[in-house]
Amino acid sequence: MTRSPDHPIPLDVLAIAAHRDDVEQTCGGTLLKMAEHGHRTGILDLTQGEMGTRGTAQDRAREAADAARILKVSWRQALDLPDGRVENTWENRLKLARILRAQRPRVVILPYWKGRHPDHYTTSILGYEACFLAGLSKLDIESALPASHSERSEEPASEGHDFRRAKKTSSKEGALAPEGNLPPHRPFKLVYASLYHDVRPTFVVEITAQFEARLQSIYAYKSQFTDQEAGRNDFPAHDDIRDRVAAMARFYGMLAGVKYAEPFVQKEVGLVDDLTAIPVKSI
Amino acid sequence: MTRSPDHPIPLDVLAIAAHRDDVEQTCGGTLLKMAEHGHRTGILDLTQGEMGTRGTAQDRAREAADAARILKVSWRQALDLPDGRVENTWENRLKLARILRAQRPRVVILPYWKGRHPDHYTTSILGYEACFLAGLSKLDIESALPASHSERSEEPASEGHDFRRAKKTSSKEGALAPEGNLPPHRPFKLVYASLYHDVRPTFVVEITAQFEARLQSIYAYKSQFTDQEAGRNDFPAHDDIRDRVAAMARFYGMLAGVKYAEPFVQKEVGLVDDLTAIPVKSI
Amino acid sequence: MTRSPDHPIPLDVLAIAAHRDDVEQTCGGTLLKMAEHGHRTGILDLTQGEMGTRGTAQDRAREAADAARILKVSWRQALDLPDGRVENTWENRLKLARILRAQRPRVVILPYWKGRHPDHYTTSILGYEACFLAGLSKLDIESALPASHSERSEEPASEGHDFRRAKKTSSKEGALAPEGNLPPHRPFKLVYASLYHDVRPTFVVEITAQFEARLQSIYAYKSQFTDQEAGRNDFPAHDDIRDRVAAMARFYGMLAGVKYAEPFVQKEVGLVDDLTAIPVKSI
Amino acid sequence: MTRSPDHPIPLDVLAIAAHRDDVEQTCGGTLLKMAEHGHRTGILDLTQGEMGTRGTAQDRAREAADAARILKVSWRQALDLPDGRVENTWENRLKLARILRAQRPRVVILPYWKGRHPDHYTTSILGYEACFLAGLSKLDIESALPASHSERSEEPASEGHDFRRAKKTSSKEGALAPEGNLPPHRPFKLVYASLYHDVRPTFVVEITAQFEARLQSIYAYKSQFTDQEAGRNDFPAHDDIRDRVAAMARFYGMLAGVKYAEPFVQKEVGLVDDLTAIPVKSI
Amino acid sequence: MTRSPDHPIPLDVLAIAAHRDDVEQTCGGTLLKMAEHGHRTGILDLTQGEMGTRGTAQDRAREAADAARILKVSWRQALDLPDGRVENTWENRLKLARILRAQRPRVVILPYWKGRHPDHYTTSILGYEACFLAGLSKLDIESALPASHSERSEEPASEGHDFRRAKKTSSKEGALAPEGNLPPHRPFKLVYASLYHDVRPTFVVEITAQFEARLQSIYAYKSQFTDQEAGRNDFPAHDDIRDRVAAMARFYGMLAGVKYAEPFVQKEVGLVDDLTAIPVKSI
Amino acid sequence: MTRSPDHPIPLDVLAIAAHRDDVEQTCGGTLLKMAEHGHRTGILDLTQGEMGTRGTAQDRAREAADAARILKVSWRQALDLPDGRVENTWENRLKLARILRAQRPRVVILPYWKGRHPDHYTTSILGYEACFLAGLSKLDIESALPASHSERSEEPASEGHDFRRAKKTSSKEGALAPEGNLPPHRPFKLVYASLYHDVRPTFVVEITAQFEARLQSIYAYKSQFTDQEAGRNDFPAHDDIRDRVAAMARFYGMLAGVKYAEPFVQKEVGLVDDLTAIPVKSI
Repeated sequence: MTRSPDHPIPLDVLAIAAHRDDVEQTCGGTLLKMAEHGHRTGILDLTQGEMGTRGTAQDRAREAADAARILKVSWRQALDLPDGRVENTWENRLKLARILRAQRPRVVILPYWKGRHPDHYTTSILGYEACFLAGLSKLDIESALPASHSERSEEPASEGHDFRRAKKTSSKEGALAPEGNLPPHRPFKLVYASLYHDVRPTFVVEITAQFEARLQSIYAYKSQFTDQEAGRNDFPAHDDIRDRVAAMARFYGMLAGVKYAEPFVQKEVGLVDDLTAIPVKSI
Repeated sequence: MTRSPDHPIPLDVLAIAAHRDDVEQTCGGTLLKMAEHGHRTGILDLTQGEMGTRGTAQDRAREAADAARILKVSWRQALDLPDGRVENTWENRLKLARILRAQRPRVVILPYWKGRHPDHYTTSILGYEACFLAGLSKLDIESALPASHSERSEEPASEGHDFRRAKKTSSKEGALAPEGNLPPHRPFKLVYASLYHDVRPTFVVEITAQFEARLQSIYAYKSQFTDQEAGRNDFPAHDDIRDRVAAMARFYGMLAGVKYAEPFVQKEVGLVDDLTAIPVKSI
Repeated sequence: MTRSPDHPIPLDVLAIAAHRDDVEQTCGGTLLKMAEHGHRTGILDLTQGEMGTRGTAQDRAREAADAARILKVSWRQALDLPDGRVENTWENRLKLARILRAQRPRVVILPYWKGRHPDHYTTSILGYEACFLAGLSKLDIESALPASHSERSEEPASEGHDFRRAKKTSSKEGALAPEGNLPPHRPFKLVYASLYHDVRPTFVVEITAQFEARLQSIYAYKSQFTDQEAGRNDFPAHDDIRDRVAAMARFYGMLAGVKYAEPFVQKEVGLVDDLTAIPVKSI
Repeated sequence: MTRSPDHPIPLDVLAIAAHRDDVEQTCGGTLLKMAEHGHRTGILDLTQGEMGTRGTAQDRAREAADAARILKVSWRQALDLPDGRVENTWENRLKLARILRAQRPRVVILPYWKGRHPDHYTTSILGYEACFLAGLSKLDIESALPASHSERSEEPASEGHDFRRAKKTSSKEGALAPEGNLPPHRPFKLVYASLYHDVRPTFVVEITAQFEARLQSIYAYKSQFTDQEAGRNDFPAHDDIRDRVAAMARFYGMLAGVKYAEPFVQKEVGLVDDLTAIPVKSI
Repeated sequence: MTRSPDHPIPLDVLAIAAHRDDVEQTCGGTLLKMAEHGHRTGILDLTQGEMGTRGTAQDRAREAADAARILKVSWRQALDLPDGRVENTWENRLKLARILRAQRPRVVILPYWKGRHPDHYTTSILGYEACFLAGLSKLDIESALPASHSERSEEPASEGHDFRRAKKTSSKEGALAPEGNLPPHRPFKLVYASLYHDVRPTFVVEITAQFEARLQSIYAYKSQFTDQEAGRNDFPAHDDIRDRVAAMARFYGMLAGVKYAEPFVQKEVGLVDDLTAIPVKSI
Repeated sequence: MTRSPDHPIPLDVLAIAAHRDDVEQTCGGTLLKMAEHGHRTGILDLTQGEMGTRGTAQDRAREAADAARILKVSWRQALDLPDGRVENTWENRLKLARILRAQRPRVVILPYWKGRHPDHYTTSILGYEACFLAGLSKLDIESALPASHSERSEEPASEGHDFRRAKKTSSKEGALAPEGNLPPHRPFKLVYASLYHDVRPTFVVEITAQFEARLQSIYAYKSQFTDQEAGRNDFPAHDDIRDRVAAMARFYGMLAGVKYAEPFVQKEVGLVDDLTAIPVKSI
């Protein structure tokens, strides 16, 4: 099947998070595994990280691109929501909905709806409501978005990268231009990456084979995880990161009888076709 | 692979319940579906139903055999625990463990651990602990079971039926004799049929295609569900049964976007291999 | 007691929901039952349904009036909040509070505070906070509402219907004009209609005698529930609606030992005067 | 309607507890209120209190009779289960079921199923299962109870008092003799007195008018609540009791907007006939 | 250690609440106890109480100062958020964050995140997010706050009192002026005063020795708690207040084996150094 | 203070578990830490481990003694309850209560009340009820224990070791003989070691400094944790144990901001004296 530039190949899985490096920490292994399964994956970061204690937004952009390559994601973009001020406004919902209509993901990974960082839990609600809006057939997003925003998009504060397609589309063309007349889209499935919050997961995804690459995708954020003075009390030392990441992944792995895993919550009940195929030993 | 009479073909799924007709009501559709998938299924009723308001234990035995055929189960047996007095004793745990070692199920369905009828919730705990015991390699069940029990088993109060194997084994031989030196066995998976209790299921199994047969398996208990004077206040009228069973199945089906379903609880977290393959629409 | 036009008869029960047809689906039977008990009931729809996949806002208005007659509600009005964008803003809270001061309901039914549709759960919070505001004696709603809104109310985007009083008051007079100097009012009781969400209800209301009429009030939304192409994947077929509605009502009825019922959640503890009068058999 | 001695007037409400003085502390006000409503009430204490730090079983028996008069209960009896060793055995279940068949209560109050004292939470389960057994029409309690027990009942270790009927039946006749051929009986409603445990009640019963009498029923246990050396660290001082009892009753009262109340949990959902009649202000 | 006027002594504990008199009712005893332990304590009221049924904002200001003295708080200020309209906006978060950077509390007490009054639960979220913002080193609050606000602060609608330092700083200097270049600050600990909501506390603080003074700090709000016509149905009679306050304090005290206590929730797990030092008897 | 042999020094902390090596895995670090704080600690294993897949009861006894030395416990004993059949019987409760009266611990650590192994969760209830019984002043344990048991205790199936007192008391004398007339004792505090179950702990105890020793105490069970054929599917490889134990300890440590920790649940609310002394950063 050929697709015109106006109809990019839909994403199979899109992870939405507040900050560059959130996805790497909460579901990077899962994204990589999905890519290795042959799925098209993507990451939407809502902010550009200008409020981070360490590094600049520019540093982060470069690092995010590196991490994306390590995780083999097909598409990554950062919106221009202010770091530290992710709010569930109509305009923000529309911005996300526009991306959803353009990328058409089947599965969306959102952060869990409780947590320490307000940006994280607000992203969870904002992302949920954007998924809902994106599916309303009578909603004309381009008319609904304030003019000021459309103008701003002429000077793309947000950069979009399509890492795996031979012929790249610039962020402006790829992410924004074609959205004007894109049909409605509602993701089939929403799951919540819960690693940042101490909540019992509904399920985990084994990432034993992806563990090292996922760790490297975190280390790709050199401005964050290199030992330095700034934020010394808030950040673990470089050598400590592997230990922490491994302990978390191992803990969730042990819940399911595997080595390393990432935890997720889903709201819906499960649907099982064959009882003998349910994994995870009971006793 | 040939199997000697001493090593019967293991069951894929064994449903354990307190009373004949419990399994039909809580997971009959699932058992039939598993059989239609080609799995070997079984039912172990702990009591013979002598305390039921309607009908005798003999009536029930005949009806249970009819229901078993409708649900295509390969094996069904009723133990001799007193109806209304299912207790989690050492002896009872051993009786169940002996069956488990003989039938070697991969999946065991137990009743949910809360409910209205003490026999139901006690069966849940008793069944769980028997599954645990059955796997202890150093446990010699035959020595552990009181002599009185062994003697009683000479006059088989419990009848065992193997409905689908060409060459039947009598209940005495099939159920008791070969167990003496059977190796330990622990089921891989335990799930809890929760239809009797108003609890949110972990997952449901669609039984749309099995719904009518499952209803017939309930109607097979003619002594229970034919309109009559005894228990008129406790039993629904015959014509009402279809409505009730359908409403329950439909309710649980709607939770998962299918027509009819049966609800189950599992204690373990799930393990998902591919996010895009998770069923049940989110939004 | 005579009441001047400025002091309309208070409502006994007011159901607030986001969309026309929500009330019919979640608590229509209860509203009808209350009317049959001799209570004055009302419905406040916050939006006009312009975002619905099927039909127009005008279609909905006509259908809502039909449904209201079937459910014997005394008063129904739709506010002009944008469909798909119900937000808990100060202005919206004031709009609702003005209605509450005008209609003076003793009981308010709100949607449950979790759910699939953002408009539903936001209506729950918005409605709660409006009930709170309406009772603040020092709050002057007319001064607090932005001028733009007061102006808009000259051209009533919202229509109000008083279905059961001999001498109708036009929406403008009845709903808006007299509110300027209406005294504060706080509903005595808030309950949450929970049918849209899989949560255990605090109580149910039997609607066996009202079931057919309530079903007809849903069918009154012909633009929604007539078989058609638009939204074919999101809407059940016409013939399927009765089955679904009945299964839900039956399920909740069975929880309380009655045939059909609608589920509600309340936050407060109960207060029982006579233990022997508590309904619902335990065992 | 005349009732022969063999068919005593059924109780409307029966409170079952482990120790004399438990009922007084958890639901004494409610029992008194029910009696004042014209209901026949009763108390079944499972033990005789021989393990109490203070006083003897004989002291307790006298005090219990005094308390019963204060609370206007029609019937009170203490079984002979060992204090500190209330166990959920078949024999104990039968003993209780026999009482239930004799007293035929419509409502049974049990202790909440969690708590500090094992006798309390075990009584909850034991009482529940006895209520279930008492309703099994095929269960012949007299045959089922071990002979040793029947013999023991000739020398009534348990004393039964019928405080309000003109013509008293001795404990032996009233409580034990007629039970031999009493028909099955299952209480309609079971509620759980939860004051001993910090759990949110489903409902409370206002006992403002009964508060003083209920306090006196506690003080009737002079051997317990008179200041003395034994158990000085475990028992509150006499003067402190009023304060504690009042604080608890006030706390639960405030939950429902009344002065004093006692808390209860029920497992079933509620069934409301008229929304405008639900008590307890929401906001 | 000397501190320049620009660097006021940090607060050890700061309680944030929506309305003057909230802190007195939910954690006044705890604040007083902390002061008696030698800690510097403070109260930040977000509104000035102009919407209260009784009294004016000016009355409240005077009464709040009296209460503050009784509770020995070192610092108290009221912001100018509209009473009845506490909203979690960016501007409000910044206003609070500015206070937090100026007062530098180690512990912040917030209201519990559920409750009857919207101002209360919104204050909980608003306060949480302000604590987060205050710690972002790259956040320049003065630039971020709208000009209109900075101007308004020239005419201090909010009054700040420093009750315990010999040389007072005027509210303008102390609270607002030096904040321009104050360094980031994030409180170490956030706890939630839960007395207004019926939730099980994580821990309580004994206030037996502080109980009378705390009661006086409530009575200091004479415009609220003197018997009068306005709000007669919403306010308890003066004589009733002691009873209610005592009952609540006693109830929470009994949970921990002390006389009077105030309840708190914390989100984090505890960290115990010595098991033998854990208070509160188990059995 | 001198203590006669009849009155051994009370334990500060006693950990009760079903199997030798349970304590090492769930709270070994905490026990060691308590010993290093100068507290007298003890371990009571209820069974002798004869049902374990690997090794014999004799192997286990030797290994348990080694582990006890590593953890610096002052006292360790194994009762003779059958492995795989820990039951909450009167006799078993008395056996434990006798130990409790002899060892007089202030704090008792029990297993959490849910779990995979029936022996674990049954030990939790059994231990709780024994703690209750041990405090009943009128309970004469020696008379209450069946004669058969007293006889059995002449040939001590259970061995008791006092590892840290200069002058050892033999198990028979130390553990059993003096208990006959020991006064009642009720532990002040019961906490539940929850590491075996995926439940959110109430608190954790940091064991960073004890981590290596605790790991060695696990490795002391050479018959279990040396690589071998038996139970190869159920036991982790030797090299894997450190990883698993570390991941668990790290996970619980991270919850509280420390490196390694062990998790505990307590039922009571906390009691905090000084808010500024609460550990664990909130934000």
